[in-house]
Amino acid sequence: MQPDLSALDATLGDGADGYLVDADGTDSTQRYLSGFDAPDPFVTCYTPDGVHLLVSGLEYGRAKKDARADTVSRLADYDYRERVSEAGQVAGRAAVVADFLAERAVGSVAVPARFPLGTADGLREAGVTVDVDDGDAVTRIRAVKTSEEVEYVRRAQRANERAMAAAESVIESATVVEGVLHRDGDPLTSEAVRREIELTLLREGCALDETIVACGADAADPHDRGSGPLRADEPIVVDIFPRDKGTRYHADMTRTFLKGTPDSTLREWFDLTDEARRAGLDALEPGVTGEAVHGAVCDVYEAAGVPTLRTNPGAETGFIHSTGHGVGLDVHELPRIAPDGDELEPGNVVTIEPGLYDPDVGGVRIEDLVVVTEDGYENLTDYPVELVV
Amino acid sequence: MQPDLSALDATLGDGADGYLVDADGTDSTQRYLSGFDAPDPFVTCYTPDGVHLLVSGLEYGRAKKDARADTVSRLADYDYRERVSEAGQVAGRAAVVADFLAERAVGSVAVPARFPLGTADGLREAGVTVDVDDGDAVTRIRAVKTSEEVEYVRRAQRANERAMAAAESVIESATVVEGVLHRDGDPLTSEAVRREIELTLLREGCALDETIVACGADAADPHDRGSGPLRADEPIVVDIFPRDKGTRYHADMTRTFLKGTPDSTLREWFDLTDEARRAGLDALEPGVTGEAVHGAVCDVYEAAGVPTLRTNPGAETGFIHSTGHGVGLDVHELPRIAPDGDELEPGNVVTIEPGLYDPDVGGVRIEDLVVVTEDGYENLTDYPVELVV
Repeated sequence: MQPDLSALDATLGDGADGYLVDADGTDSTQRYLSGFDAPDPFVTCYTPDGVHLLVSGLEYGRAKKDARADTVSRLADYDYRERVSEAGQVAGRAAVVADFLAERAVGSVAVPARFPLGTADGLREAGVTVDVDDGDAVTRIRAVKTSEEVEYVRRAQRANERAMAAAESVIESATVVEGVLHRDGDPLTSEAVRREIELTLLREGCALDETIVACGADAADPHDRGSGPLRADEPIVVDIFPRDKGTRYHADMTRTFLKGTPDSTLREWFDLTDEARRAGLDALEPGVTGEAVHGAVCDVYEAAGVPTLRTNPGAETGFIHSTGHGVGLDVHELPRIAPDGDELEPGNVVTIEPGLYDPDVGGVRIEDLVVVTEDGYENLTDYPVELVV
Repeated sequence: MQPDLSALDATLGDGADGYLVDADGTDSTQRYLSGFDAPDPFVTCYTPDGVHLLVSGLEYGRAKKDARADTVSRLADYDYRERVSEAGQVAGRAAVVADFLAERAVGSVAVPARFPLGTADGLREAGVTVDVDDGDAVTRIRAVKTSEEVEYVRRAQRANERAMAAAESVIESATVVEGVLHRDGDPLTSEAVRREIELTLLREGCALDETIVACGADAADPHDRGSGPLRADEPIVVDIFPRDKGTRYHADMTRTFLKGTPDSTLREWFDLTDEARRAGLDALEPGVTGEAVHGAVCDVYEAAGVPTLRTNPGAETGFIHSTGHGVGLDVHELPRIAPDGDELEPGNVVTIEPGLYDPDVGGVRIEDLVVVTEDGYENLTDYPVELVV
């Protein structure tokens, strides 16, 4: 995958000679700029000449082979051990980075806001100008996916559909005893459904840190992961956002299932939320703002008399979150489909995930993952939208 | 778990009013100081008066309930939205942190070396003194575990033993066809064994990002994860370092298995490495340095005429890494059992993991996880040391 980093040149146009990152491979900006993954922090410098890496001797061979870099240097090339024994770990390493930059005639750098202070102070001490890039340049570049990145997300969403099917199947095949779902004679819990999801994703080469399987009052809190026995006639929100272990790209999808019979309010909420989802999707196209797409979703809810954060910023029931977010190396990234959402571009991969919440009713959320195209969008999600299982 | 943070007061004795962390819950220093986990960065300030948290409104309720904090504040308590719309995301948030500190009469802070530059620059702008803590105070405190933390590691190592048993069982029950291990008619691969390990750990509530199952020449590189079909009569290094998803504490263990018949060199290597392991363990007690324990391991290898990094810093075969490392919230943390290892204390949880490597022979490594006690050590690892399965 060859990202288009030319937008970084504009950032550097503000006066910096290079864009500098000092982080390990779990940092998405590092991963994106370097194309390299290592468990310990390493240094990447982008200049108009190319991408330059500075790694430990342990990672050197692998970096030469795997990284998307024009040059790879070793800490030892700059007397790392001597510097550290003279000045200590932090200042010694920073002095090495300063030498690495000097060799490339880089006297000033733009850095991400979370660049490590220890390195920055050492570089400044050595006369390098270090300024935080307020404009979040790499994050903005990452928001527009190449076709290869879209494929990575699509593949992760395929795995995610299998995980969702595993969850639905367990809920659907449960028996109901005194209002509680059961499997093999025992109550079926959020934890057990989550386990089925995890096992399925593991087989698909995906990992996840968290999954939401939330029933009833749990489901009324959009951030509650859910716990304990699942109940009949109540909505069960299943929200899965795995990471493909090979590519590190994420997927994201939510469905709401109900075993038994929904009351009329839940039925209405589900249909309304599906309508809001379709309205959000219909609004998607290049040039439209994330704010406008969010507005299209709010319009549907507000027309039905349901509170949203747009009509009541303090609302605690109704549609109480934004419509969506970008998905890629991070599960939450740009662009925002929210009140402060900027103009969309082809290649943006975003969720559309309206939902309704009330502790007295429960929660309903439906989430698709889509990519903005030249003339609209393509839905990367192939999963039915049905409440009753 | 109530950590003993009094050593931080000594760090603050250097002139800082507080110790400040700005990181998400995956950062082990943040996790340790705050006792709180959140996906987005939040702020923790330790002062001699207590631990103070600054979180988003979204996390406020959970932080009040779960965090190990004396006070919890919200970004909104300090006009967060206004500040951000005036000054931008980075500077606006930093201004809020400055107000949060001012309210606690904190005019100077020590911070970890990887503290975010954007926040540091904003605090300095607001007149707060921000100095990097070169002494790595929290990391040093974390190296000495409470009995509760030792229990967390012990529990993770129990799960790890089950995973190791699953791996051994698959290798042991393989059939050999033309020198290659087979299961159900297909070649048995590193990837398949890794899958067994992952499934077992998932059932035990543990997660892992990587596992080493490396055979033959792969095993000769201590950092190669291994891939492809496993072969008979060659050593298979299995190194598993999972994280308990509940407590976030790690375990770590390595065994080397061989299906078939080892040649005399491999047999010698294995027995020598087991002897080195026992020598390392025998040397463990409070007051002994990590350097001395590493030396005891090198002594065994060197007496047998095997190269070590102590006799030849450029050695590419033989014992080419250090003896061990601390294990806790991070899988690699203090203390070091290495040439620069400091004095050990009761409560240090460390690995002892000697190994021998040569691309022409393969690799052998044996690793136990132990806790240093008042009068020696306790081995937290209950798993046989046997080469041939």
